[in-house]
Amino acid sequence: MNKSILIKATLLVSLGLTLLGITASVSADNDKKYRWRLAETWGPNFPIFGDASKNMARMVKEMSNGRFTIRIDSANKHKAALGIFDFVKSGQYQMGHSASYYWKGKDFNAQFFTTIPFGMIASERHAWFYYGGGMELMKKVYDQYGIMSFPGGNTGNQMGGWFQKEINSVEDFKGLKIRIPGFAGEVLAKLGAKPINIPSGELYTALERNTIDAVEWVGPSLDLRMGFHKIAPYYYTGWHEPGAELQFMVNQKAYDSLPKDLQAILTVAMKAAAYDMYAQSMHVSGENLASLKKDYPDIKMRSFPKSVMNAIKQTNDDLLNEFATKDPVTAEILKSLNDYKNQIRAWTDLSEKAYLDNFDE
Amino acid sequence: MNKSILIKATLLVSLGLTLLGITASVSADNDKKYRWRLAETWGPNFPIFGDASKNMARMVKEMSNGRFTIRIDSANKHKAALGIFDFVKSGQYQMGHSASYYWKGKDFNAQFFTTIPFGMIASERHAWFYYGGGMELMKKVYDQYGIMSFPGGNTGNQMGGWFQKEINSVEDFKGLKIRIPGFAGEVLAKLGAKPINIPSGELYTALERNTIDAVEWVGPSLDLRMGFHKIAPYYYTGWHEPGAELQFMVNQKAYDSLPKDLQAILTVAMKAAAYDMYAQSMHVSGENLASLKKDYPDIKMRSFPKSVMNAIKQTNDDLLNEFATKDPVTAEILKSLNDYKNQIRAWTDLSEKAYLDNFDE
Repeated sequence: MNKSILIKATLLVSLGLTLLGITASVSADNDKKYRWRLAETWGPNFPIFGDASKNMARMVKEMSNGRFTIRIDSANKHKAALGIFDFVKSGQYQMGHSASYYWKGKDFNAQFFTTIPFGMIASERHAWFYYGGGMELMKKVYDQYGIMSFPGGNTGNQMGGWFQKEINSVEDFKGLKIRIPGFAGEVLAKLGAKPINIPSGELYTALERNTIDAVEWVGPSLDLRMGFHKIAPYYYTGWHEPGAELQFMVNQKAYDSLPKDLQAILTVAMKAAAYDMYAQSMHVSGENLASLKKDYPDIKMRSFPKSVMNAIKQTNDDLLNEFATKDPVTAEILKSLNDYKNQIRAWTDLSEKAYLDNFDE
Repeated sequence: MNKSILIKATLLVSLGLTLLGITASVSADNDKKYRWRLAETWGPNFPIFGDASKNMARMVKEMSNGRFTIRIDSANKHKAALGIFDFVKSGQYQMGHSASYYWKGKDFNAQFFTTIPFGMIASERHAWFYYGGGMELMKKVYDQYGIMSFPGGNTGNQMGGWFQKEINSVEDFKGLKIRIPGFAGEVLAKLGAKPINIPSGELYTALERNTIDAVEWVGPSLDLRMGFHKIAPYYYTGWHEPGAELQFMVNQKAYDSLPKDLQAILTVAMKAAAYDMYAQSMHVSGENLASLKKDYPDIKMRSFPKSVMNAIKQTNDDLLNEFATKDPVTAEILKSLNDYKNQIRAWTDLSEKAYLDNFDE
């Protein structure tokens, strides 16, 4: 049906409805267009993280036949990488793509929905979110801000960082200047390290000139573009972000104003894009690790010695226990995370870990 | 707008269009209803597997605002659990939910899209499907039948089975009567075992009366309802289905007849439902393993000894190499699976496995 015929038909229907005493337009809800904007923490064309929001917006547009489109503003546009929470809360943007642990200054409990040191890996965390009560706890925290929070893509287990020197004992952390943000930094500080916050653009030079001794970033999927492998010989495995899940945020009122089918389209698109990001993270990590090993065969990949790992874990447990005494919601979230991890880890160990162990030399 | 008003309005528009010399109905594409049927291999209310198709159909209905609905027929209805391929090929059903390895009699190469012994775990296989060329290879195999094949939900790593006796050496497989279907059965047969096919309803009695010595099923998520833990003391970890991915099938012509937005809705709903099934499998496995350990503390959970595992792996590799010489497409698929596994496994080992190892005593 071309447009002019549609208009004529609509006029006739309007006439008919008027004759029937009805003044409403014939236009059903499914002709109304929804034009949303999403603000993301990342810069434009940031790999993997940025693909998650683009994939989500593409699926929404295709599934809604163009009735619902979402424009993405990267950090260069809105100039507030860590302003996403406020943008979505105020409704200035209907949506955001970021990470919940950035909002611990807004709400202390927000940080636990991304990852915690010695917590669950991606497959376990997805089970917790969707089947183990995680979504309900996240709603409890975010409801009070008029924000809906959803999983936004998993990085997989992150690497412990690039180090100039080998770590042989807990003593080696004393005075160690390391870029490692947030909770993990607090843990290492208790062991004597000096966590330092440096803008990402200056990290390479800081590591090269020994302004810092180590830098934690993500993993092979995103580290190689930073160039750290050219100047630091040790690449340590991770303990601090075993399955960091990014976050889609939606302004509750904006969501409520959508017709039910577009609400469903948005929700499913966010979920599929988030799951896909973990698959993409795995894929790119595999590719980049292969090229790293080929082009930089002298990089030494290590895990911290058992004694060091035990000390870090004990410090971490103490800190979490301290948190739990301060607020009942914190206690509830940490208990849920811990109980669930213990239950599902028994299965991970008996299934995928036992399977992988069979390949060990 | 209620229905009677809608009908009257439509009549008026039809009249108007007739006056304009147009005989087409006013119904735009987005008023047309699509009523599909899906045949699944599973019985009614089969847990987890059955939830995947129900979740998919629910999402399709919600996202399409009821324009597109999919009725699910379980095996009790269509009476042909392993007839799904033919149903979808002929168009008798527009869709199916099953597993690709059931069709190796139709096309030898179909089996490799579910899982292979010593192959990839779920997270690795998802990366292969969506980012590593897996979907393209699956299309190559299924295109010739007018069928589209999609991932349909992952079981996670399956357990090696319930055994009446401990396995201490390869010799212990000699004459062992075991229910283990397909490719894994062929491998064990080469080591002297006697794979036996018994209908699922008779398995418990067969194991109890020593008609068989061992039975492979799925894992804690689905084994407990079978009751094997009451009569077999050993529960072995798996090697043969490290991440079995079920399958959604769609008749190509039926898909082509959908408007673009409903094609997108169907594709995204299948993907989200498939990913969700892995999370659900993890969740239920964790729960059921906990209750198994609590209620049946004497169950001995074991991995086969290294020597046994090496013998199985060698036999498996020989068999796969033999397959690869027979058909260039088989060779192409097996090379892709093997090369991709080697690349991504290096990352799995350095990331999630190294992380899990840190918790070992």
